[in-house]
Amino acid sequence: MATTPETPSSPVHGYISDKDRYLARLKRIEGQARGIHRMIDQDTYCIDILTQISALTSALENVALGLLDDHLKHCVVDAAKAGGSEAEQKIKEASDAIARLVKS
Amino acid sequence: MATTPETPSSPVHGYISDKDRYLARLKRIEGQARGIHRMIDQDTYCIDILTQISALTSALENVALGLLDDHLKHCVVDAAKAGGSEAEQKIKEASDAIARLVKS
Amino acid sequence: MATTPETPSSPVHGYISDKDRYLARLKRIEGQARGIHRMIDQDTYCIDILTQISALTSALENVALGLLDDHLKHCVVDAAKAGGSEAEQKIKEASDAIARLVKS
Amino acid sequence: MATTPETPSSPVHGYISDKDRYLARLKRIEGQARGIHRMIDQDTYCIDILTQISALTSALENVALGLLDDHLKHCVVDAAKAGGSEAEQKIKEASDAIARLVKS
Repeated sequence: MATTPETPSSPVHGYISDKDRYLARLKRIEGQARGIHRMIDQDTYCIDILTQISALTSALENVALGLLDDHLKHCVVDAAKAGGSEAEQKIKEASDAIARLVKS
Repeated sequence: MATTPETPSSPVHGYISDKDRYLARLKRIEGQARGIHRMIDQDTYCIDILTQISALTSALENVALGLLDDHLKHCVVDAAKAGGSEAEQKIKEASDAIARLVKS
Repeated sequence: MATTPETPSSPVHGYISDKDRYLARLKRIEGQARGIHRMIDQDTYCIDILTQISALTSALENVALGLLDDHLKHCVVDAAKAGGSEAEQKIKEASDAIARLVKS
Repeated sequence: MATTPETPSSPVHGYISDKDRYLARLKRIEGQARGIHRMIDQDTYCIDILTQISALTSALENVALGLLDDHLKHCVVDAAKAGGSEAEQKIKEASDAIARLVKS
């Protein structure tokens, strides 16, 4: 990515293609937020704005669920193999993040 | 607002101050989306990204709940006074929007 | 009450058939809760228990959305017609209930 | 537990005290469902019923989050240590269950 000069020969993470996909999804999400701003500015009918907010919330949830799945697959599995307090802490972190998602 | 040439003497809606507040909140939400894009781009720790997504989702929910309250106060109350099929349709629209929010 | 003999000339609410349906749905929900209790007692695989909890949560949400729709159709519309502080209070109550549903 | 004749010398799971706590919580949840049934039967004010439904939904979510945390700590960590397709399958199952919770 533009801001972090990584050479192709030294990837710090193994899922760069997913990263591009996430970046594209966030670009779309940013555009959706801009669209909702415009709808409010133009006095669009309230129910239509709410429909767009629900769509944006779903898009964000799907990004969160994807990131969480990646996190379980990589960080949590690695920590579980290493064992000890590192594993416990990673599970606790993941459970707390899941609780925030479920309750938000 | 910039895009809709309304003179101060002829507001089409009675809640212009709220509108400014909503526009400011949407600007912040757009900034939050941009921040999450940057976090992904910079390989920020996944759990920290999830925390920001939960915060953004909550911010969006609060905007939606505010808009819905305005909608009930103005459109639904006006339609209820007018009565007939217009009232029925507005209630159905509102209930459908609430269902989408609860399920999203 | 469905179970108490009401004369047709003194209905306290206009939606008695819906009430029977809600009572049947709540009976089913109570049965689902009992089923989850039994699954935990019998050491059922955790993921299968979670599936049943998600189903129960969805059933509850649908009951809530139905009750809310009835409430908007009857109480809120009646209060809107009457106008004044009664209408305002009913809308505020409804908005607060919607917020609790969206956030729960 | 009463219904499963396990001898103390052969526990199949290591978290029996948690199990008693979950069973007690499910008993309470069943009672809450019965209470909502009674409220509907007695024509309790709709908003008060909605408040109880939100409370019940939150109680269920907390049980689900607790079970999921236990599941990550035990099943997923064990599978991660074992590695291979078993680990992959457990993570997929857990991610799917989390998605159902977030979306329900």
